[in-house]
Amino acid sequence: MFRVGNGIDFHRLINEPFRPLMLAGVEVKSDFAFLGHSDADVILHAVADAILGAAGLGDIGQHFPDTDPIHKNMQSSLIVHKALSLAAEKGWKLVNVDCTYVGDHPKINPIRKELQQSLANIVSLPLEDVSIKATTSEGMGALGRSEGVLVMATILLEK
Amino acid sequence: MFRVGNGIDFHRLINEPFRPLMLAGVEVKSDFAFLGHSDADVILHAVADAILGAAGLGDIGQHFPDTDPIHKNMQSSLIVHKALSLAAEKGWKLVNVDCTYVGDHPKINPIRKELQQSLANIVSLPLEDVSIKATTSEGMGALGRSEGVLVMATILLEK
Amino acid sequence: MFRVGNGIDFHRLINEPFRPLMLAGVEVKSDFAFLGHSDADVILHAVADAILGAAGLGDIGQHFPDTDPIHKNMQSSLIVHKALSLAAEKGWKLVNVDCTYVGDHPKINPIRKELQQSLANIVSLPLEDVSIKATTSEGMGALGRSEGVLVMATILLEK
Ligand SMILES: [Zn+2]
Ligand SMILES: [Zn+2]
Ligand SMILES: [Zn+2]
Repeated sequence: MFRVGNGIDFHRLINEPFRPLMLAGVEVKSDFAFLGHSDADVILHAVADAILGAAGLGDIGQHFPDTDPIHKNMQSSLIVHKALSLAAEKGWKLVNVDCTYVGDHPKINPIRKELQQSLANIVSLPLEDVSIKATTSEGMGALGRSEGVLVMATILLEK
Repeated sequence: MFRVGNGIDFHRLINEPFRPLMLAGVEVKSDFAFLGHSDADVILHAVADAILGAAGLGDIGQHFPDTDPIHKNMQSSLIVHKALSLAAEKGWKLVNVDCTYVGDHPKINPIRKELQQSLANIVSLPLEDVSIKATTSEGMGALGRSEGVLVMATILLEK
Repeated sequence: MFRVGNGIDFHRLINEPFRPLMLAGVEVKSDFAFLGHSDADVILHAVADAILGAAGLGDIGQHFPDTDPIHKNMQSSLIVHKALSLAAEKGWKLVNVDCTYVGDHPKINPIRKELQQSLANIVSLPLEDVSIKATTSEGMGALGRSEGVLVMATILLEK
């Protein structure tokens, strides 16, 4: 048995040299950071939402409300682990994860390997079953003005 | 045999207290409504398009042109039923549906259960195989200014 | 064994009567064209990225950097063929492709059959396993102002 899921997450980019910029669990060197209540890891949020969606288990806003002070600056790998364990309780195992990142900053290509290895570790999959691709909106709209970024994740579950 | 499909639908939000706001077949209490030729049910449109796409059967714009007066204020559950029956003629059954809603109004979390139950009824799936997640564009762009909403659906078909 | 993948690609629309407008490998008659380093075929780019993503093989920006003069005005069918052959080396075969095009110009409906037939030829799948759907952002944002278009592809691989 298989199930498919999608996850979409947006975060604003802010000039905040003292806040770490987190992507796929990696602290990326940058003068910028993503704005958010948790650690604002836009890749991990999209992945967690896709897992919850495929398993019919709600979304991260429901499980980790950003109005709850306990989630402030929370490590998003915990959010992914929670999504995976809720799915596992229903018998679902993650098969593969494919992400597309839309944004100009930071650039993914120079750090792709590191991000993919970190994501593979977090979801406990071999590297070849985890993918982080990148593109831009070609200067169009809010993403084109580098106001923030978008990640879309697509995942497959198997029982 | 499996096939995957995606559906994307956008609708503008308008201040129109006398037009019902429809989401996943549910009439949601609101001073706002979605603009559109049919009942403008953005969730059902994305789901129907994803079913048609996975089965290689065109799109809802082709089957239900918005220039045709017969589709004015049409119930979108009929669009989903038509997509499912066209897919069934080719031997395809729907396995699961996962939707992400991007928008600020209306909020999905307080009405999620009701929307999911309605969607499950419309597509004849158990509740656990139907998912409606929600997020926002974090105030960015047209969706961030509440000009409208976007829904992306991902579905799996099996023969 | 199955894997799912997604691909997102944006291109700006420009008034350039002497540059061909390429979509799914078809030269579409238009006073406009898509801006880009290669032939800017937004459908084929999204499809190639989805294949690479599902197979864990990087993205088209990595395999075909737009800073490399060798890729200038390159036919994008070659990009798709390369993605398919890299996936085939790992044992993966493409099962189906579903695309959603978001944009006002050019309109897809009148040329859908031709685009789908071309895409089917390029990926060597029967017509029924290839889908190009179209919608608009209902006048919202950069896509609503016809600054450009977006294509999202979802694909399934089997081994
Ligand atoms: Zn987030
Ligand atoms: Zn619609
Ligand atoms: Zn492109």
